[in-house]
Amino acid sequence: MKIDLNCDMGESFGQYHLGDDAAMLDIITSANIACGLHAGGPLVMRETVTNAARRGVAIGAHPAYPDLQGFGRRAMQLSSAELEAFLIYQLGALAGFAQTAGTRLEHVKPHGALYNQAVSDPDIAAAIARAVAVFDPTLIVVTLPESALRLAALGIGLRVALEGFADRAYLNNGTLAPRSLRGAVIHDPGVAAARAIRMVVQGEVETLEGTVIPLRVNTICVHGDTPGATQIAAHLREVLEKAQITLAPLNEVLKG
Amino acid sequence: MKIDLNCDMGESFGQYHLGDDAAMLDIITSANIACGLHAGGPLVMRETVTNAARRGVAIGAHPAYPDLQGFGRRAMQLSSAELEAFLIYQLGALAGFAQTAGTRLEHVKPHGALYNQAVSDPDIAAAIARAVAVFDPTLIVVTLPESALRLAALGIGLRVALEGFADRAYLNNGTLAPRSLRGAVIHDPGVAAARAIRMVVQGEVETLEGTVIPLRVNTICVHGDTPGATQIAAHLREVLEKAQITLAPLNEVLKG
Amino acid sequence: MKIDLNCDMGESFGQYHLGDDAAMLDIITSANIACGLHAGGPLVMRETVTNAARRGVAIGAHPAYPDLQGFGRRAMQLSSAELEAFLIYQLGALAGFAQTAGTRLEHVKPHGALYNQAVSDPDIAAAIARAVAVFDPTLIVVTLPESALRLAALGIGLRVALEGFADRAYLNNGTLAPRSLRGAVIHDPGVAAARAIRMVVQGEVETLEGTVIPLRVNTICVHGDTPGATQIAAHLREVLEKAQITLAPLNEVLKG
Amino acid sequence: MKIDLNCDMGESFGQYHLGDDAAMLDIITSANIACGLHAGGPLVMRETVTNAARRGVAIGAHPAYPDLQGFGRRAMQLSSAELEAFLIYQLGALAGFAQTAGTRLEHVKPHGALYNQAVSDPDIAAAIARAVAVFDPTLIVVTLPESALRLAALGIGLRVALEGFADRAYLNNGTLAPRSLRGAVIHDPGVAAARAIRMVVQGEVETLEGTVIPLRVNTICVHGDTPGATQIAAHLREVLEKAQITLAPLNEVLKG
Repeated sequence: MKIDLNCDMGESFGQYHLGDDAAMLDIITSANIACGLHAGGPLVMRETVTNAARRGVAIGAHPAYPDLQGFGRRAMQLSSAELEAFLIYQLGALAGFAQTAGTRLEHVKPHGALYNQAVSDPDIAAAIARAVAVFDPTLIVVTLPESALRLAALGIGLRVALEGFADRAYLNNGTLAPRSLRGAVIHDPGVAAARAIRMVVQGEVETLEGTVIPLRVNTICVHGDTPGATQIAAHLREVLEKAQITLAPLNEVLKG
Repeated sequence: MKIDLNCDMGESFGQYHLGDDAAMLDIITSANIACGLHAGGPLVMRETVTNAARRGVAIGAHPAYPDLQGFGRRAMQLSSAELEAFLIYQLGALAGFAQTAGTRLEHVKPHGALYNQAVSDPDIAAAIARAVAVFDPTLIVVTLPESALRLAALGIGLRVALEGFADRAYLNNGTLAPRSLRGAVIHDPGVAAARAIRMVVQGEVETLEGTVIPLRVNTICVHGDTPGATQIAAHLREVLEKAQITLAPLNEVLKG
Repeated sequence: MKIDLNCDMGESFGQYHLGDDAAMLDIITSANIACGLHAGGPLVMRETVTNAARRGVAIGAHPAYPDLQGFGRRAMQLSSAELEAFLIYQLGALAGFAQTAGTRLEHVKPHGALYNQAVSDPDIAAAIARAVAVFDPTLIVVTLPESALRLAALGIGLRVALEGFADRAYLNNGTLAPRSLRGAVIHDPGVAAARAIRMVVQGEVETLEGTVIPLRVNTICVHGDTPGATQIAAHLREVLEKAQITLAPLNEVLKG
Repeated sequence: MKIDLNCDMGESFGQYHLGDDAAMLDIITSANIACGLHAGGPLVMRETVTNAARRGVAIGAHPAYPDLQGFGRRAMQLSSAELEAFLIYQLGALAGFAQTAGTRLEHVKPHGALYNQAVSDPDIAAAIARAVAVFDPTLIVVTLPESALRLAALGIGLRVALEGFADRAYLNNGTLAPRSLRGAVIHDPGVAAARAIRMVVQGEVETLEGTVIPLRVNTICVHGDTPGATQIAAHLREVLEKAQITLAPLNEVLKG
């Protein structure tokens, strides 16, 4: 049994530092690297790509709406053509640093508002899928199991990695419980780790409503910018390894 | 005898339009395309790359300081590491659009303040040369014959194309006369065209002081954003062709 | 009978020029000046404020979403607190230039997506009204007759100026016909001028569907960035003056 | 004997937090608030102004070059007219929040590269002084005792507050020792506090070279973004109070 651990990183900006990327790179198998439009920037991108490559962590793009002040979390209304172009721009910029570091991009995971909208909005999902396909059809798209992006990416011939959240509650329909709901975020690392194992081994999760639903995932997201983030991630990795689950980048996980 | 005609383009931004890129693409052989930091942006970049590729015009990057408001014309103090990363970012972003359009970058010509500083500042020249070499050592660097960037690029093993300005006066030391000097800009298209032919055929130019100095160039810059720009450029092309000078992209010109 | 003529201006940005503000200032009575977030910027704001003050044109703020690339025309999802703060920021910045020029702000007209959303979205309308009221309750809010912003501004005790568009078609419900509809934009300056007079004198307009509906307006918007904009505006002014309608800034128009 | 304690604040940006402004406001007497161009932004400015007003801390503008990524620490080449306009823009924006909170600006302290350049560059100093004078001639300008800005501000009729740094070493010519020099930063809070008292009481400081030079200051800068910043500032305040020195905002200090 194999699972990928992914983390958003390279989200520092100028004078502002966010997350302990160096520590996290020792734990995860895939890094989603900000491309300068919601966070990051050329210098941060270069350092993060170089560090990830050095540790053998798979490098992916974490593209977003062009909105530094809103950290890519504010929905913006772009035309499909504009969105597609913004994605190619970000993929190209990050791929340039990968090329410079002697490596290549493996996957794409949209950030923030774009990630959320791609779950439910077929036009946005289609624009993302088109951008990835036209830029590099070998890239893996990371999204939720129940999402418009999954369908759009598969429809255009891309590989898709399904993402699970060990520390977030699910609803019966397989979507994430909004953070505003009581119990939406699981703070106990032990509970989160147990949920991760259940996702990977049994392919299921217990929802906020108390039902057990199927949930097959290829990668589990660990957060880099919360207090104790690296301890929680390290604990999760340890528990997964004790359960004889192999941690591997998406490329290997998808091969089965 | 061969010469390249290059023009900066893709410098529109959002609602703002600059230059008649479509008309200019029928005249020139090399397009220096803005990478979104001083002008342009994803949608403009994609359209410009696509149009250039369709007409067989060679595509080059026109990277700049990150300064939309100053149009990349304000000198900014970046560290060498920062500058290098900003250049790779821009090269990568534009290369992404080239890849998407089924083509590739051929050259790099720094923009505005960066172009000027690269002529006289060895540290900035070295940072540019390193960025190009590490990103793609087959790219041609466009700069002035008398410049720190020429030396830095040659020193690191890059090919260099020397740029001449038919409509700008030169000083005896081979540098461009500052625009503030009387006679620094040549407004008569006929005079400019004659100067271009003299540069290409005789490899010389008459300076503002009245001396004839050697000036060997591989490419002549035509301006896209001045009144009557396309008429002037078309006239130049016609005059060059009548003089039996072959217009060809840099790659061919450098082969001799 | 009195009417105000207003025009959006100061929308140049850095190297990019938009509209012939100097010519328009001889025609209009109220200038809505961009505040640097969708267009404009400190230097443009200062020049525009100074020029407007010199010609006796009333100065108003034209605040927008923070989105230069989208020219403030892309809807953005800001919290109410964020939107309120962004508006105060823009009002303050423009008021600073007014103060510097020895004058003051008279009105506020939201720009682009914000203008449109304020018509139909009560939360956005309330945030705008609160921002204006807390910054300077003597400012006049410019909006459509049928709009949430009108209600919100009146509710909080602000003066409201109702805006009409001589060159745009109306629907039976009093809203502007979307530009995508055939006939939504009136291109004939004579027809537009006649419609303006009918709005001012009879307080009515013929809709796209052919019905005559009441439409009382205090100000008519003239566009500054379309071909022939100043000729059209000058013609409108001439026709209004011939019809014995007094052109006056909002402050006077609202006094009756 | 009176002294002001000032601190740069409001330098968080979007998702990024910098400094413990709430704690610092209990210690200092003057807050230099970022105006959104190097850090901060509308929401942060509003909160910081409101909090400062509530605690009776004097509010001042902390204007900078427009450079979020460089945190205003990269020198930029702006024309005098441009720089003047950028300063008025920032003063106006912050004054808008002060007005909204029922208070007003008391002082201006340039940030980062602008602060440093204003010490040695008379043109930049003059542009800053003109901007302040034309915006509001009652504002106090904060700068180093030996600085071009001091002369420019006094020359144009502005009040000037001289700033000292308790935790930075001085050279014999009265300027700050560059951070690159060994001993340039004083890390021991006790030593820094003793130096502060000596500046206030005796009007002198011992330089890095070991000489005692006169140094008369009206305000001492405490840093908000270094580890242990609030503890160090609180200690300094306590020591000053024990030495019977009254802490008061600049307005009172300058009255003597």
